[in-house]
Amino acid sequence: MSGLQVSWGAPRPERADAARNRAHLLATARDMLAESGPDQLTMDALAERSGLGKGTVFRRFGTRAGIFQALLDEIERGLQERVMSGPPPLGPGAPPVERLIAYGRARVRLLIENTEIARFALDGRQPLPSSPQTPASQMHIRMLLRQLSLDGADLDLLAIQLTAALDGPLLLYLSTDALTNAGPQIEQSLGSAWQDLIERVCRP
Amino acid sequence: MSGLQVSWGAPRPERADAARNRAHLLATARDMLAESGPDQLTMDALAERSGLGKGTVFRRFGTRAGIFQALLDEIERGLQERVMSGPPPLGPGAPPVERLIAYGRARVRLLIENTEIARFALDGRQPLPSSPQTPASQMHIRMLLRQLSLDGADLDLLAIQLTAALDGPLLLYLSTDALTNAGPQIEQSLGSAWQDLIERVCRP
Repeated sequence: MSGLQVSWGAPRPERADAARNRAHLLATARDMLAESGPDQLTMDALAERSGLGKGTVFRRFGTRAGIFQALLDEIERGLQERVMSGPPPLGPGAPPVERLIAYGRARVRLLIENTEIARFALDGRQPLPSSPQTPASQMHIRMLLRQLSLDGADLDLLAIQLTAALDGPLLLYLSTDALTNAGPQIEQSLGSAWQDLIERVCRP
Repeated sequence: MSGLQVSWGAPRPERADAARNRAHLLATARDMLAESGPDQLTMDALAERSGLGKGTVFRRFGTRAGIFQALLDEIERGLQERVMSGPPPLGPGAPPVERLIAYGRARVRLLIENTEIARFALDGRQPLPSSPQTPASQMHIRMLLRQLSLDGADLDLLAIQLTAALDGPLLLYLSTDALTNAGPQIEQSLGSAWQDLIERVCRP
């Protein structure tokens, strides 16, 4: 798959102090990002600003990309919550095609609003999927496809294809520095392209 | 997008001796692969076997993944040639939907037949597209889409989506060691899923 993965499942339980450190480090990282942008957010700077020491920062994030990955995970968990219990059409209660469209549009918006975080998070990723976990996008798309009557389709593979089709243009956008300031227009284009694809694929 | 890229364009011209070295190194690498598998194909072993010295091997390929990338490029150039001047439906002369289906099926077969090479080549890739060149798949898919009358579609974005949808399941397969021996069955599944997607998207 093309990269952007999150896990739906509950994270491994953390000890209370580890959870406190994690929350403190992420809050500090967000402050640093807001104040001085992603270039200043390094392992050393985060350790100094948080007062938690380089060892703790290293154990928690491993690499600088790991800091951005943790920030992206947190942002994506917000999307998961809206998908699972927010208002329709992103949340439950709308017809599946409308939910598919709303999901792709929300994911496009989220990643474009957080372009810098997503870009730096992906910097440390392997091109081949390294996690045995199925990406959250793919599971959600698969669940909605099952609610449709798509004659003869292999829904598992269709979900993989559509997940890649959603992330592919986003990855291209994230890799293209020149487009950073064209966010709103790109969001509109990618959202419409996703809607068009879903409407074509799901036509009865 | 999600990784597997090749360039359609002519490669940068090489000096005659550089071209000879390159051909000799690739032929040696193919021999070594056939004899003892990918694990034995290292920079040092290739230098020794080819008699060309470590400096030459390093300048030519940069990293071990670069050797596999060069082998994959060569294999993909074979596909390009069949697309541009081979018999239909992969080559010119068939209706565009048939050519789209044939292209995806040929790409699936090619990468599954060369699973080890593709896997090792991708090992060195960045998740974000690093080349300014548009992948060959995307250009070919875009060209065929233009021959169809798809109302209201943004053909550039649709080509990006379909390229990602073709490569997404392949990347998942390439990342899954356990499936290495299931090649023929996977080829059938991925080929059918691609055909199904194209038929859905291109329905009038």
